[in-house]
Amino acid sequence: MSGQKQQGVPHPYFPRGVSIPHYVPNDRPLLEILGLFFSLVGVVLFVTWVYSTRRRLGVTDRLIVCWFVVCGGIHSILEGYFSLYHDTLAGSSSYLAQMWKEYGKGDSRYITSDTFTVCMETITAVIDGPLSLLTAHAILNHAPHRYFLQLTVSLCQLYGDSLYYMTEIREGFKHGELWHPLHFWFYFVFLNAFWIIIPLTLIGQAGKRISQSQSLYDKDRRTNSKKKSK
Amino acid sequence: MSGQKQQGVPHPYFPRGVSIPHYVPNDRPLLEILGLFFSLVGVVLFVTWVYSTRRRLGVTDRLIVCWFVVCGGIHSILEGYFSLYHDTLAGSSSYLAQMWKEYGKGDSRYITSDTFTVCMETITAVIDGPLSLLTAHAILNHAPHRYFLQLTVSLCQLYGDSLYYMTEIREGFKHGELWHPLHFWFYFVFLNAFWIIIPLTLIGQAGKRISQSQSLYDKDRRTNSKKKSK
Repeated sequence: MSGQKQQGVPHPYFPRGVSIPHYVPNDRPLLEILGLFFSLVGVVLFVTWVYSTRRRLGVTDRLIVCWFVVCGGIHSILEGYFSLYHDTLAGSSSYLAQMWKEYGKGDSRYITSDTFTVCMETITAVIDGPLSLLTAHAILNHAPHRYFLQLTVSLCQLYGDSLYYMTEIREGFKHGELWHPLHFWFYFVFLNAFWIIIPLTLIGQAGKRISQSQSLYDKDRRTNSKKKSK
Repeated sequence: MSGQKQQGVPHPYFPRGVSIPHYVPNDRPLLEILGLFFSLVGVVLFVTWVYSTRRRLGVTDRLIVCWFVVCGGIHSILEGYFSLYHDTLAGSSSYLAQMWKEYGKGDSRYITSDTFTVCMETITAVIDGPLSLLTAHAILNHAPHRYFLQLTVSLCQLYGDSLYYMTEIREGFKHGELWHPLHFWFYFVFLNAFWIIIPLTLIGQAGKRISQSQSLYDKDRRTNSKKKSK
């Protein structure tokens, strides 16, 4: 771990001179922190997948339900924690703080309470999180508003994540070590890419279904008004 | 106009010490700048309203078409100009630059090429602008994807504008003179409020219509599968 002396506190974040006066290093090993996160995601995926067999849903719909339940958990718990405790997490040793301190090596905006990052994550935690769970519930129950919710959540995720990438590109990737295999490629590029690619796919699917049902609705209304006029 | 000496250039922007070395004051009077903007909006509204009488649309749909055409113009032209020329507009005297230099008195992030502002405005110009015009076209033609587009554009506008307000609130309104009747209340609060209130209303309307037609579609599919199974 590379360190920078700033106000007496060495830390591994970029740009090198950034001040994080209350920083305390993680005391959990990397594998434990990442292992816990991915194990929890795995358990949620497995439980949701098994639960969804009880409903009359196709494989695609079951996969989409799994996606939204995982999103609900990550947005509400992990990003909700960031939204509430971003200004103190650099000095905290809770599991969630240690996850953010590890992730912050790829993007120090999470450690320095960057304005855009805090606001975007607050919307993600407060709006996208609960809406993700409502979307999963709507798909499981074949509710008529399921595509409205799927489109709404996916657009919010896509917008937030696009801005997240764009702002960092515009600032010359200065908040992390460029090309670092774990911090840049895995944390910053790979993990966030899920919230670009999957929402884009789900926006396309929702758009197709919404247009399909609107087409039938319009046809039905035209038929009814012709019947009435006869 | 209040000025601040910074690198030899007096300017009217906040916070007082912010550096805008290439700043050139507007040479057009305030009334001309605002008059031109609101006259153009008025002309676009009038022409769209008159044009929409040719189609079989209700008053609400015609008003929504007017809204999206005005949005298409503002996003593509005014915000498109900002997205392209934000780094030089403080020194320019074109009409569009003078509009932004006037608006910037309420929010200097438009004069200093603030990262979040440039990225958000680029999405607005490149995505929201063309999509607004496509939405107006879709409503005029009663296209089956009209509510999909209406929901997509309105969510993008709401997300961008919410972040715009939130980031400035979090930074303590430091980029403009707080409580200034024109710069704070009219430019920053009032003008931007349109892109919160109207999108929220249009999201609600689209959600209702999407659910309605999906409900009919699901019923239709159930009826068809029962017929087949008999």
